[in-house]
Amino acid sequence: MSLITGTDPRTGRPLPFQVSPSTTADVAEVCETAHGAGARFAGLPRDRRAALLDAIAEGVEAERAQLVATASAETGFGQVKLDSELVRAAFQFRFFADVVREGGFLEAAIDHASSTPMGPRPDLRRMLVPIGPVAVFGSSNFPFAFSVLGGDTASALAGGNAVVVKAHDSHPHTSLLSHAILQERLGEHAPSCGIVFGHHAGVDLVANPRIRAVGFTGSLDGGRALLKVIDGRDEPIPFYGELSSLNPVFVTPDAAATRAQEIGEAYAASMTVGSGQLCTKPGLVAVPKGADGDALVAVTAGALARHETHVLLNHGIYASYQAMTDELESTRGVRTLVKGTSDGSPGYGVGTRLFEVDVADLSDAHAHEIFGPASVVVRYEPRALPEAFSAVLDAVPANLTVTLQVAEGDAAPLGPLTRIASGYAGRIIFNGFPTGVAVSWAQTHGGPWPSTNSLHTSVGATAIRRFLRPVTFQDCPADYLPAELIDDADVIPRRIDGELTLPRSVSRDRRAATARC
Amino acid sequence: MSLITGTDPRTGRPLPFQVSPSTTADVAEVCETAHGAGARFAGLPRDRRAALLDAIAEGVEAERAQLVATASAETGFGQVKLDSELVRAAFQFRFFADVVREGGFLEAAIDHASSTPMGPRPDLRRMLVPIGPVAVFGSSNFPFAFSVLGGDTASALAGGNAVVVKAHDSHPHTSLLSHAILQERLGEHAPSCGIVFGHHAGVDLVANPRIRAVGFTGSLDGGRALLKVIDGRDEPIPFYGELSSLNPVFVTPDAAATRAQEIGEAYAASMTVGSGQLCTKPGLVAVPKGADGDALVAVTAGALARHETHVLLNHGIYASYQAMTDELESTRGVRTLVKGTSDGSPGYGVGTRLFEVDVADLSDAHAHEIFGPASVVVRYEPRALPEAFSAVLDAVPANLTVTLQVAEGDAAPLGPLTRIASGYAGRIIFNGFPTGVAVSWAQTHGGPWPSTNSLHTSVGATAIRRFLRPVTFQDCPADYLPAELIDDADVIPRRIDGELTLPRSVSRDRRAATARC
Repeated sequence: MSLITGTDPRTGRPLPFQVSPSTTADVAEVCETAHGAGARFAGLPRDRRAALLDAIAEGVEAERAQLVATASAETGFGQVKLDSELVRAAFQFRFFADVVREGGFLEAAIDHASSTPMGPRPDLRRMLVPIGPVAVFGSSNFPFAFSVLGGDTASALAGGNAVVVKAHDSHPHTSLLSHAILQERLGEHAPSCGIVFGHHAGVDLVANPRIRAVGFTGSLDGGRALLKVIDGRDEPIPFYGELSSLNPVFVTPDAAATRAQEIGEAYAASMTVGSGQLCTKPGLVAVPKGADGDALVAVTAGALARHETHVLLNHGIYASYQAMTDELESTRGVRTLVKGTSDGSPGYGVGTRLFEVDVADLSDAHAHEIFGPASVVVRYEPRALPEAFSAVLDAVPANLTVTLQVAEGDAAPLGPLTRIASGYAGRIIFNGFPTGVAVSWAQTHGGPWPSTNSLHTSVGATAIRRFLRPVTFQDCPADYLPAELIDDADVIPRRIDGELTLPRSVSRDRRAATARC
Repeated sequence: MSLITGTDPRTGRPLPFQVSPSTTADVAEVCETAHGAGARFAGLPRDRRAALLDAIAEGVEAERAQLVATASAETGFGQVKLDSELVRAAFQFRFFADVVREGGFLEAAIDHASSTPMGPRPDLRRMLVPIGPVAVFGSSNFPFAFSVLGGDTASALAGGNAVVVKAHDSHPHTSLLSHAILQERLGEHAPSCGIVFGHHAGVDLVANPRIRAVGFTGSLDGGRALLKVIDGRDEPIPFYGELSSLNPVFVTPDAAATRAQEIGEAYAASMTVGSGQLCTKPGLVAVPKGADGDALVAVTAGALARHETHVLLNHGIYASYQAMTDELESTRGVRTLVKGTSDGSPGYGVGTRLFEVDVADLSDAHAHEIFGPASVVVRYEPRALPEAFSAVLDAVPANLTVTLQVAEGDAAPLGPLTRIASGYAGRIIFNGFPTGVAVSWAQTHGGPWPSTNSLHTSVGATAIRRFLRPVTFQDCPADYLPAELIDDADVIPRRIDGELTLPRSVSRDRRAATARC
């Protein structure tokens, strides 16, 4: 097999770092090691597990300079984006350390023995336990925050799971450096966290019987291919794919009338941050017909026309951007508003693109997510807002986000629009833009297929739930219960005989921990 | 298509009630109706939804006589089993009404806008919302508690979902009467709950794009077939199958030495309740070699030999029981301890069966769940307990339950055994038996594949989580937020800025509601 080589997207030329793709035997060994080490890691007390997550965060920060420089060379992203992404990766480990210390994620419940209409009920004590080794697929576009050091790894480790990461081919050196930090900081638990390289290794990984769940951030095609591998397993396992999203933005007539300049500029900025290679990039904006909407679209077009070349991550994304924007340009009903060109330097540089289409002409053809600085403006009749809103959401696949740009005292039926939107996405945004996903307790980064599998977020505290399963202990002597399920262990939130109870002893500590976020 | 006809299992003769199988067009219409009505049902305030669940429970009790008589004719189950199952079905609806009123299941969280190491964070408010129409497959063996009026229907409706039930062919009349209760008590929301009949209708149902999740209690083969249908959908959906479980029971040497009589009798009772047709039937008991174990096995064998004919549910289960027990009898290393015979009357009556095998000879051949009053005794060397325990769990598929029969001050390594067991099952039982699954907050009825899909219980409060997905509202004006996410709405448990908070206003009501369970 040929070596995996990073490429400098600014020049298209190979970088000196190379790594061998993992063989089928390598993958089997890494999975077996992770499985073997996983039981001890799963058995760690919560405070010890939290301390390891904090240590990883420190390790990430300690290696900032080398990580950022390496990732910049391999991805073409600038210092600002990578620096903030690294801050996010470190924050995420510390955040999950707090989640682990707080303990609510265990969903602990105790039903003492009692009598019921169905007769006597035994003593039942439930909590969540790790599901087993988790396969994590690094993404191309977030070399830190959604890769080896990303949220899937952090939430899986936080849940007490061994992890095997499949490094993304676009940044093998960054991945290896990242994995070295995990190894160093996990110390004696380092065998709980493996890494594999190469396309075939990813397939072997998902097929491996030791693997019990998959976290994947990538393309719809890639996700479908892995789902097929899962379909062929003896034991099906959950696939948490974050796959594809257009993240539509709707501008009400009142919003266009009052904030055309602001919205037009902010839209251009949001759709091009990270060169338009974010899963939350708005790929579609619905703007009312008429002078207000025209003004807004002109602002966006003007801003995009002033952009310099955007360097894309790798040749695949570059080629796909060219092909998909060319196809869109020649689609019936589509008007090209901006056709930026690259500066002609070698590498994966492209120009911005902005298209326009009437809502009546909107179809599947406009509904594909395009990685890169391109977007579609959909024009609708101002008087037809509720119908136009539903028409757009029905025409495009489901999404991570739906955004509403509204005005003070807006005349649009915002209540119904909000309810409609929540059927099509996992996050409904008012007067903001979808790019930028805060890591917090109330976050949802997920939505109906194909954005994700609907049921869980992949960002924020509750992402940990993906990698846990419930176990109930019936009439279990206290000596053999997990610490959190013993009557006297008043240290985490627990549901006792149906009533949610908060621990007295830790409420002060927890407030301090929360404040730190 | 031929009509679906119930059969009296006691005689093998058809019952007068007949129903037409639903056509593909019927299924499409039922799904479309459920989808269309679902939005209004989902939008009901929680107290209104809870009242509907209470009303259904009343309806179930009001029709007790006819339901039990009809189900007895169609299933061959006696009055006692069916009466208690009906109590359970009604209880389940009331229990979920309490779960809905309490509101913790919404996992509401509010993160007020603040600054973070990654910059300013917007106001984020998260809660769970219904996932959409749910397909529920009635089981053969629980005509009430796991069928039209069962836990999947109750938890899906409790979550605010429309439901389409696929009635089990074994009890079409019971299913139709059950559905009529739902229709009557749901009143104007009756269109949110449809029913379909027949094998092909089940396939059409799972393939229907309106259906967003499937709850299934049935055979492993049936579950695999439906998974294949899901694999072929454009949008994958979660499949919550409760499929197959041997529910192994381990008797420690000390337990055998001190309680041979008690355990031997209770085992015989547990494996034959409901004629051995419960998903929690213990199909395997590991007993130490030597005099104590011999005594225990003799008690079980003696009890089983005294059993009269057990009537099985339908011809399929009857034929499968005969074939699988005959195959087991002729498997290498298997000794037959009890070979009961039926009384020769027509219908689906069978005798009890008990087999014995050495742990060293245990293989896949002994690891199939057999519906009916049969079980396998596995004998192990008392000194080899930890290894024998792992050997048995590794030899059989994963389970809903693992049971440990232990003694006061038991010399066996119970800590390690408990930890090992929790990797193989969702409920670990001490000195009880797996049959009988309490409906409560801390219950888990689920385990690693093929018992279920690991991640969720299908019995108890948290079963509702299967049919919900998270939505986050970012910077949403209070006017358009769901009621539970408004700052002042201090009526349910919420996580506010990372801290779990309990409502002051309802704590007294909730205690009253809890006491009622």
